[in-house]
Amino acid sequence: MKKKWLLALTAFLLACTFANAETLEERVERLEKELKETKQELVKQASEKRASSSFNMASITDGFEFHGYGRAGFLIDQQGEKGKAFQVEAGDFTSKYRLGNEDDTYAEMELVKKFDINGSQGSVHYMFSTKSGSGNEYNTWTAGRGGNGAENDSFKTRQFYVDITPNDGVTYWAGKRYYAREDIHINDYYIKDFSGTGAGIQNIKLGSGTADVAIVATDSGVHPEYTLHSKYSTGPWTFELAGHAMRPDSATKDKHTARWGTQGSVSYSLPGFYGLNDNGSSKIVLQSGVGLGAANGLGRASSWSGNNRKDAVSLNLITYGQSNLSDSWQIMPELGYRYDKNFLGTKNLSQHWITAGVRATNPITNYFAMQYETGIDYVKVHQGKTDYNSGLFKLTVAPTLKLDTENFWGRPELRAFVTYGHGFGDKKNIRKDLDGKSHSQGVLFGIQTEVWF
Amino acid sequence: MKKKWLLALTAFLLACTFANAETLEERVERLEKELKETKQELVKQASEKRASSSFNMASITDGFEFHGYGRAGFLIDQQGEKGKAFQVEAGDFTSKYRLGNEDDTYAEMELVKKFDINGSQGSVHYMFSTKSGSGNEYNTWTAGRGGNGAENDSFKTRQFYVDITPNDGVTYWAGKRYYAREDIHINDYYIKDFSGTGAGIQNIKLGSGTADVAIVATDSGVHPEYTLHSKYSTGPWTFELAGHAMRPDSATKDKHTARWGTQGSVSYSLPGFYGLNDNGSSKIVLQSGVGLGAANGLGRASSWSGNNRKDAVSLNLITYGQSNLSDSWQIMPELGYRYDKNFLGTKNLSQHWITAGVRATNPITNYFAMQYETGIDYVKVHQGKTDYNSGLFKLTVAPTLKLDTENFWGRPELRAFVTYGHGFGDKKNIRKDLDGKSHSQGVLFGIQTEVWF
Amino acid sequence: MKKKWLLALTAFLLACTFANAETLEERVERLEKELKETKQELVKQASEKRASSSFNMASITDGFEFHGYGRAGFLIDQQGEKGKAFQVEAGDFTSKYRLGNEDDTYAEMELVKKFDINGSQGSVHYMFSTKSGSGNEYNTWTAGRGGNGAENDSFKTRQFYVDITPNDGVTYWAGKRYYAREDIHINDYYIKDFSGTGAGIQNIKLGSGTADVAIVATDSGVHPEYTLHSKYSTGPWTFELAGHAMRPDSATKDKHTARWGTQGSVSYSLPGFYGLNDNGSSKIVLQSGVGLGAANGLGRASSWSGNNRKDAVSLNLITYGQSNLSDSWQIMPELGYRYDKNFLGTKNLSQHWITAGVRATNPITNYFAMQYETGIDYVKVHQGKTDYNSGLFKLTVAPTLKLDTENFWGRPELRAFVTYGHGFGDKKNIRKDLDGKSHSQGVLFGIQTEVWF
Repeated sequence: MKKKWLLALTAFLLACTFANAETLEERVERLEKELKETKQELVKQASEKRASSSFNMASITDGFEFHGYGRAGFLIDQQGEKGKAFQVEAGDFTSKYRLGNEDDTYAEMELVKKFDINGSQGSVHYMFSTKSGSGNEYNTWTAGRGGNGAENDSFKTRQFYVDITPNDGVTYWAGKRYYAREDIHINDYYIKDFSGTGAGIQNIKLGSGTADVAIVATDSGVHPEYTLHSKYSTGPWTFELAGHAMRPDSATKDKHTARWGTQGSVSYSLPGFYGLNDNGSSKIVLQSGVGLGAANGLGRASSWSGNNRKDAVSLNLITYGQSNLSDSWQIMPELGYRYDKNFLGTKNLSQHWITAGVRATNPITNYFAMQYETGIDYVKVHQGKTDYNSGLFKLTVAPTLKLDTENFWGRPELRAFVTYGHGFGDKKNIRKDLDGKSHSQGVLFGIQTEVWF
Repeated sequence: MKKKWLLALTAFLLACTFANAETLEERVERLEKELKETKQELVKQASEKRASSSFNMASITDGFEFHGYGRAGFLIDQQGEKGKAFQVEAGDFTSKYRLGNEDDTYAEMELVKKFDINGSQGSVHYMFSTKSGSGNEYNTWTAGRGGNGAENDSFKTRQFYVDITPNDGVTYWAGKRYYAREDIHINDYYIKDFSGTGAGIQNIKLGSGTADVAIVATDSGVHPEYTLHSKYSTGPWTFELAGHAMRPDSATKDKHTARWGTQGSVSYSLPGFYGLNDNGSSKIVLQSGVGLGAANGLGRASSWSGNNRKDAVSLNLITYGQSNLSDSWQIMPELGYRYDKNFLGTKNLSQHWITAGVRATNPITNYFAMQYETGIDYVKVHQGKTDYNSGLFKLTVAPTLKLDTENFWGRPELRAFVTYGHGFGDKKNIRKDLDGKSHSQGVLFGIQTEVWF
Repeated sequence: MKKKWLLALTAFLLACTFANAETLEERVERLEKELKETKQELVKQASEKRASSSFNMASITDGFEFHGYGRAGFLIDQQGEKGKAFQVEAGDFTSKYRLGNEDDTYAEMELVKKFDINGSQGSVHYMFSTKSGSGNEYNTWTAGRGGNGAENDSFKTRQFYVDITPNDGVTYWAGKRYYAREDIHINDYYIKDFSGTGAGIQNIKLGSGTADVAIVATDSGVHPEYTLHSKYSTGPWTFELAGHAMRPDSATKDKHTARWGTQGSVSYSLPGFYGLNDNGSSKIVLQSGVGLGAANGLGRASSWSGNNRKDAVSLNLITYGQSNLSDSWQIMPELGYRYDKNFLGTKNLSQHWITAGVRATNPITNYFAMQYETGIDYVKVHQGKTDYNSGLFKLTVAPTLKLDTENFWGRPELRAFVTYGHGFGDKKNIRKDLDGKSHSQGVLFGIQTEVWF
């Protein structure tokens, strides 16, 4: 009986097992089928993705980039007229502390196309700039002022160049481009700008650092100027050396006119914000040059005026930094001294320039910050018996909207502002009224947007 | 024996079961392996997708947008020469029924970059326009007509502005921009256009509606004009109010010259197409202004001529709509009356202007439609003893290709056209022949494309 | 006992089976669950992909394309001044063998937006060109030379047109555009260029081939010129026929001045590279025209000067090809002969022009190639008693960097180069020194980038 039950049980269990086995087999079959379908779907999606990628490549233009910079707004003087930016009356410098002190609508638009062939990369950069038409800065349509073309807003091709980076990591470039530029933001002071049309090699590994070399041609004068520029960066140090050659304009040259020039600079990036905290950056830059590398040629691939003297000498020492001191205060200070001798083609004409300024930003909410900027420029010119000096103190208060007030460098910003300017020294006028009278003090107000991306 | 068989069967089945179980187990193992691989592939694809998305973001410039408007083509008069658009000979209006009646190649290209930081959004808009060079409208290369630059096609920066929308939903903007524009398409009649350089706040919730306010500066005259513009929309109603201030040009001003002005408008959107059907839209707009807000200043942030009288008064009443009446007919009618008094700086100079027109589109296939447009402009000018009137009747037939004829507003369109114009009244000339004679009737034909996107 | 063992074994095996079955079932259950999750994930990813696609569409501007062409660099003559490209002194041709022989920075930027509505496609093309300012080709900022606008770099709208391709596959277009252009790259010689403002139909199936027809208006002269152009391609053959009409400028016309013109061309694409190998292409083109279709009008929609004679006749026979002969040598040769009679509005003025040149590229590495280009132009002008001839031989060596040297047509390229030019014949001068003296031989060197994308 036991055996019988056992056998019956065995048979039942076998049947169950079989039944189970059948079911499982069916389920496994189903699983197999479903998994196969899932894998097919996955393959299909992957190929679709590739197709969509190639669609991107073909039709959304893979490798396209759009970048730009610009400022726009209105500036009103105390008579209700269009304001002019305050600036030191005398001297040869165009930099000025810029917050609430810019009077143009200016934009730079850059279109980039990147290439990648078997891991070797290249790109082409095209940038144009535009500035609103003189006398019609505010209108969205500049009325004709003369014939065709003359009514245009300014259009300039600022950059058109190509770079190629083979797998070795070194970058080769040629064309018209911004090159080796260094701008101190708060007074828009380009201490270096070797832009022009040329060719060069960047990112050459050399010892513990990297080197860049370039030859750049410019043509501000009658004859082209050629500049050989080299740069070496290692750790916190950057060294630059440039040599220049230009045939002097025969109409203005004499035996003192420079045909050559040279200049050099040393930059040292201090740890954090002058060692005071880790939350920022700071640096010291020393530049000097002679001949074509001095005066307007210091920090430039172009000596502009074209009649630099051989014995022209320039020296520039400047320091600036930026730090978020706390959640409430972000600052950017700047301090500089510059000396030029035998410049503007004139023996013994010399000039000292001191500039000091700071922008302080105080975030109130995520979107709203109060900004303050003050700065002093002081120029002393020695020219035999006619020495004179000229200075400007500027103070701006600017309630500001932005997307993220935590970020000092974040843009866009929308700013309302009031600016007070006070000229001093022998040449102290900073504005002219409608009645033609000049004044040494003034107030500007307005609204401006600034953006880069 | 039975038992023996049973046992043998049991053993056989067990063996089978085992064999089956083995196979199943193998299959399940394979399934498990395959499923694991499938999941890995899925994860890989997902991460690749993320990578590709971030590639998109980084390198295809996430947030980039490209928009534009343009028209191009050739217009031939009955002598085979370049045609000039027909227009009322007298009066101060540049609007005209436009289908088959435009003589320029004009384009507006807009590049947009959008930002999104923690849900707060912003964007920068850059737009330039271009119009083909005078005398060389057709050539793809405009020959030099003078020095560098003078040979250029028109280039104008029409907009460069930034807007910021924090999480509160209100939008803040500043820069140069099109603002508060309303164009009636068929005669390109901007009844409102407060464009200029300024700043403002949009989308302020107020009661059941939303409000916009802006200050806009323009500079068509000698001195800048400042306009404070406000707008309130609720349900079918929109109200606008603007105040103006401008120092008069001292060379032309007298005691009657306006320094101030104001204007207002009321718009009412009727239900559907004048209540006749739901398949469309229609509205009535009433505008009026005094001083700087009258004459050329009505509906504008700029009074252009700059010598508006204090007692200048303007009134504009206009209605227009669009409806797809049936699968076969889409129409857009317009009817307007305008009155100006003491305008162009002249006491008692007054002007009545009536305009009436309609475009009718008849889709034949998905891609091909016949378009018809007719319109009448009539101006009556009172100026003491020298009253006069001037009118124009225009009729155009335009076979049209487009991507989707169901959509009246869909563009691009490619149109061939024939246009008949008939001037009437005291000043009725609408074209000049090669022999210098003027005529009150004429025919134009040509091909034109129009696109916006 | 045996039975007992058998039963015990059976029970054990059953237990095992059960255990196994259980395990398998659990595993299958797990598999089912995992597979379900995998499929859900797949669906989620697919929908995300769709979302991401629509994100692309909305915010990265689906259908946007960015294309361009450009060249930039500096060209130095043997005096260290800006070089001028070498060119045949006499004759009416501007083509020249271009490698190492171009003196401008020129760019064409094209923005495209594509549309797709229910499978019908369209696109709008906007292209502008820019050339660096005269005298300031190298600077990234062109200094003001006169008023607003006059200081601009050249800005020209080269193309603005729309095309529509309904589902029938035929393309309709209208606007300003490049049309029916054929450029022989090495001497930048446009043997065909029917660009202008017009409208047309492309890709009409006709027999075994396809046909294009267009009407194009140009306006280089006083009156517009209208060209009806047709093209038929079948297999290796392409036939073009064009008719022209233009009212002559009444100031210069006489009874011989052409009001009409016609021209035709036949192109035959040889198999491979002149049948010598399959690794390339080659073709022969024969063109001829009379009246407005001759002289400057041959291969053009515009006869420029506008005073073509009725009996002006031109003929052009040219062949060119490109082949990668081996891994080491890629060549592009060209050979042409052209004859013009009664041109420049002058009876019996005739001109023969022969041009022959070749560019040879020798890849050294994947990124570096040596390029060589030589060419001869020879013009013989018959003009009654004052017959003369003029010729130029040019040779350039150009070490070149590019992303893929295997591809002759691959761009960008960065090239250093030295070019030697030698003029000969009665008019053989090809350069002028600073002292004003002309010379028949010269050397140019420099660096240039060239790119298209």
